[in-house]
Amino acid sequence: MQKGTDYPKRNGVPMMAAEEQLRQLKKGIVDLVSEKELLEKLTKSVKTGRPLRIKAGFDPSAPDLHLGHAVLINKMRQFQLLGHEVIFLIGDITGMVGDPSGKNETRKPLTKEEVKENGKTYARQIFKLLDPKKTIVEYNSTWFEKFNVFDLFKLAGQYTVARMLERDDFSKRYKSNNPISIHEFLYPLLQGYDSVALKSDVELGGNDQRFNLLVGRDMQKSYGQEPQVIMTVPLLEGLDGVNKMSKSLNNYIGIEEPAREIFGKTMRLSDELMMKYYELLTDFTPDELTDLKNKMSNGALNPRDVKVSLAKIFVERFHSKAAAEDAAKEFFEVFSNKGMPSEIPEWKTSAIDNLWICKLMVEAGLAPSTSEARRLIDGGAVEKDGEKIKDNKFSLNLKSGENFVLKAGKRNLQK
Amino acid sequence: MQKGTDYPKRNGVPMMAAEEQLRQLKKGIVDLVSEKELLEKLTKSVKTGRPLRIKAGFDPSAPDLHLGHAVLINKMRQFQLLGHEVIFLIGDITGMVGDPSGKNETRKPLTKEEVKENGKTYARQIFKLLDPKKTIVEYNSTWFEKFNVFDLFKLAGQYTVARMLERDDFSKRYKSNNPISIHEFLYPLLQGYDSVALKSDVELGGNDQRFNLLVGRDMQKSYGQEPQVIMTVPLLEGLDGVNKMSKSLNNYIGIEEPAREIFGKTMRLSDELMMKYYELLTDFTPDELTDLKNKMSNGALNPRDVKVSLAKIFVERFHSKAAAEDAAKEFFEVFSNKGMPSEIPEWKTSAIDNLWICKLMVEAGLAPSTSEARRLIDGGAVEKDGEKIKDNKFSLNLKSGENFVLKAGKRNLQK
Repeated sequence: MQKGTDYPKRNGVPMMAAEEQLRQLKKGIVDLVSEKELLEKLTKSVKTGRPLRIKAGFDPSAPDLHLGHAVLINKMRQFQLLGHEVIFLIGDITGMVGDPSGKNETRKPLTKEEVKENGKTYARQIFKLLDPKKTIVEYNSTWFEKFNVFDLFKLAGQYTVARMLERDDFSKRYKSNNPISIHEFLYPLLQGYDSVALKSDVELGGNDQRFNLLVGRDMQKSYGQEPQVIMTVPLLEGLDGVNKMSKSLNNYIGIEEPAREIFGKTMRLSDELMMKYYELLTDFTPDELTDLKNKMSNGALNPRDVKVSLAKIFVERFHSKAAAEDAAKEFFEVFSNKGMPSEIPEWKTSAIDNLWICKLMVEAGLAPSTSEARRLIDGGAVEKDGEKIKDNKFSLNLKSGENFVLKAGKRNLQK
Repeated sequence: MQKGTDYPKRNGVPMMAAEEQLRQLKKGIVDLVSEKELLEKLTKSVKTGRPLRIKAGFDPSAPDLHLGHAVLINKMRQFQLLGHEVIFLIGDITGMVGDPSGKNETRKPLTKEEVKENGKTYARQIFKLLDPKKTIVEYNSTWFEKFNVFDLFKLAGQYTVARMLERDDFSKRYKSNNPISIHEFLYPLLQGYDSVALKSDVELGGNDQRFNLLVGRDMQKSYGQEPQVIMTVPLLEGLDGVNKMSKSLNNYIGIEEPAREIFGKTMRLSDELMMKYYELLTDFTPDELTDLKNKMSNGALNPRDVKVSLAKIFVERFHSKAAAEDAAKEFFEVFSNKGMPSEIPEWKTSAIDNLWICKLMVEAGLAPSTSEARRLIDGGAVEKDGEKIKDNKFSLNLKSGENFVLKAGKRNLQK
């Protein structure tokens, strides 16, 4: 069911008509500046056989990737599959300086050693999605370590304070008297200069990066280049379907999680969220997505099977085809074949702090009494999202929108 | 009449009591942040025998100095005469970047060659006021050429956008939607870092530099140093007594003008302005200035003689003692001994554009007709401020507040 990858190409050069490439590339994006320019660039690329140079910058401070990050990488993958040249840019200089984007506080700069280590971790993860042979990995220290005071002043002279203060988070902080350090004004300029150094045709980014991406256009113009097209992808909602996917909210699927975890977590997505994940995280073309939706609507496909396919796609991508088959097999053995209902009973509650696990089990009907609950825990028969609970004094803080499977013996409960 | 220079010192180290030094140094200044700190520094200096390090920065874009610039240099001289260590800092890096202070438009950066040439011109001029053996000349390229991206980000991280926008000219430009280029925000930080590099105890500057000087205090604190004291001197009014002295308004006395010019222009000062020049541009101590004023009030001194003394001080300082005597002699010969009235008749008019020189001469009574005026000009008998007028078609644009001496044959007219 791995779809959408069979684009026609010749020695890696896109052969698909520019209009059709554009239609496919617009899948799931938030913003495109501008569609007209992208079409022109694609048309020229098809005509001359020169692939477009696609830039995406990554801050090396958070190299532990999850599906939220994969949305962007998947868009890079889409360009790569169409035959374009994808540049994975590690902002090691900017990372050592700190990235103020969307933050109300200045980040602590990373050391050179941390940056180097993070770079390796990045590579290991992104090549689950991108073809290592066709991906150009760059570090912006390459050009910025040679920068001197004059170069930096020339760069800073290309932009005004007023325009910089138009950026959403700067504007908010300025108005609310929260300090903006002057070095934060330099960061978007460096990011913009990366585009000059790379001569990028297109820059991809999360939608919170829109302003910085636009600065890149201005910088290219200032340095006599044709401005890049910018394309932004949305922030991905986590498993709860409410909040942005993040480690701290524990609503994520990590790229390096065990196959079983990835599979199980994917199966817990709502049907609606599943379709969003299909759009943003797979190679399905717009037509294939429409087809999938239609088949679910008219009953030709069972949403649960579609979800299993998605779970397999993820496991195959992040582990292997064999791991995907194994994870599926195990999932069905545990949840379907051993007399468990194919639908896990759901128990809903409002947010509670400090809820004793044994009390929860009784309330949810997983144990007749707290002492029986304690006995089950001590016997190693209780799992939360597949992880054994060992401490019978364990307390939970249930947050609004949180969602997990609690298993006691053979009984399961989905909160 | 060259006064005030006989301060007691020992091997160049100040010996005058700290309180008395403070009293003298406060002569003619606008701002002092803070008096308490300066007294502490002076006290420590007297106690330890370590002279204070006095910084004054000069933008190498305008090396043609006039008395307006000399106010600051005279304050440096005062510190030097008291035994302190004076640092003449040429902001060659910042000059190559452009100094936005007090300007509504970004200045064009200078080339390295221009900066070097200007540096030489500066030295030639300042050593008319400062002792070359005791003056440290520094170029800030010494430290900034070694600056890399990290150093500059560290520097920029020490200050906030909001505080920078508090600077008067930035604030005005921001509010009136006049562009401020981001590199202009870096300039005060570089100037501030100069104080760190120089470990300055005191920074002197024109009053329009107050903000930048205060940034220096903050930078020193950020880099773990005791903050410098800042002292500002006023902008000097030009010969017209109204506008700031400047070349473009032609109301200046240039440091490198001929002795005769300097003498003559000084003699045209009003009595009030003369006293200001005494305060800001000579070595007269506060007590000596008071004495001078008293003697003029009670008739013991004729203001005209006091003006002659001032003119002599300037010529002696910028040329030589002999040149001062010669200039005085010539002045008296022309204006007093050869039957000319000791007071030059004054003729006032409102601002006029395109006034033909011959017409002016007739109206002012210097010639009976325009044809006679033409004849006088052609015969080389007409001078404007000592400069021969050769073209009888010459037109003047008389500005409000402008002031010059027109001489036809032996007759003089002061407009």
